[in-house]
Amino acid sequence: MIREMTKPDFEAFWPVFHTIVKARETYAFDPDMNFEEGWQLWCEMPIKTFVYEESGKILGSYYIKANAMGPGSHICNCGYMVSEASRGKGIASQLCLHSQAIAAELGFRAMQFNAVVSTNDIAVRLWQNMGFQIIGTIPDAYQHGQLGYVDSYIMYKVLVETD
Amino acid sequence: MIREMTKPDFEAFWPVFHTIVKARETYAFDPDMNFEEGWQLWCEMPIKTFVYEESGKILGSYYIKANAMGPGSHICNCGYMVSEASRGKGIASQLCLHSQAIAAELGFRAMQFNAVVSTNDIAVRLWQNMGFQIIGTIPDAYQHGQLGYVDSYIMYKVLVETD
Repeated sequence: MIREMTKPDFEAFWPVFHTIVKARETYAFDPDMNFEEGWQLWCEMPIKTFVYEESGKILGSYYIKANAMGPGSHICNCGYMVSEASRGKGIASQLCLHSQAIAAELGFRAMQFNAVVSTNDIAVRLWQNMGFQIIGTIPDAYQHGQLGYVDSYIMYKVLVETD
Repeated sequence: MIREMTKPDFEAFWPVFHTIVKARETYAFDPDMNFEEGWQLWCEMPIKTFVYEESGKILGSYYIKANAMGPGSHICNCGYMVSEASRGKGIASQLCLHSQAIAAELGFRAMQFNAVVSTNDIAVRLWQNMGFQIIGTIPDAYQHGQLGYVDSYIMYKVLVETD
């Protein structure tokens, strides 16, 4: 059900991706990006990208990449998307659990989200329930499509204790 | 004295750049990066890169880029380097002041540093003196060349008040 994303998968998922980015409520991505830019950002720049598939439909996706280079490369970063029709069914939780397992496999010691939009209550609560802490608040970090400037949170979870 | 960086400038500055990155004390850059990778990272990916020149010598440099895309693109990010022999002369302060003016010119509303290594006291104090606040601490974010895992700070300064 969760497996690596192919380009045909991203084609199938593009309407969801495009709608989420266009809404300017959750992602700091260019709302006018085209398909190829989306593919690059979501699937080519990360280390790996996965889909949540059910009955041949792509209901969600996430990527994993290093959050920094060299001496900062032991912390990973992930981004998750779930289609609007499939929300509230625990798919984001499953993707996040999967990503933590993959992160550990890839040798990462912690996971960091750099900009969780503060008004995205569902995401904030979900990540908190999964053990992520808000370690910082960036004032007016996000130009929300409906609400204007709102804060973003930096969230963090240790995956493997350092010595 | 402060002007945009050319490739010959970066060639002249490379020994400083390489030494700083190799030391693994301040930058989350791959310590083994080569010249071309350094050029890309420092001069091609950013919007602009500047040098501090004195008597024909490049004593310092900084880059400026957007810290995020789309709805997060009003916050910029900068990185500064000063050659070891030229420290303690206020060059970093001058570069930072210059970068704040350039940031405002480019339309940015705030500046964010994503990973100021907590043991880099001189930098932390300097940015605080220049009006930056620590808005978050990332536990064990940096594998310091001498000290092992140390925290990093996220620092932030408003440049233009949002409405």
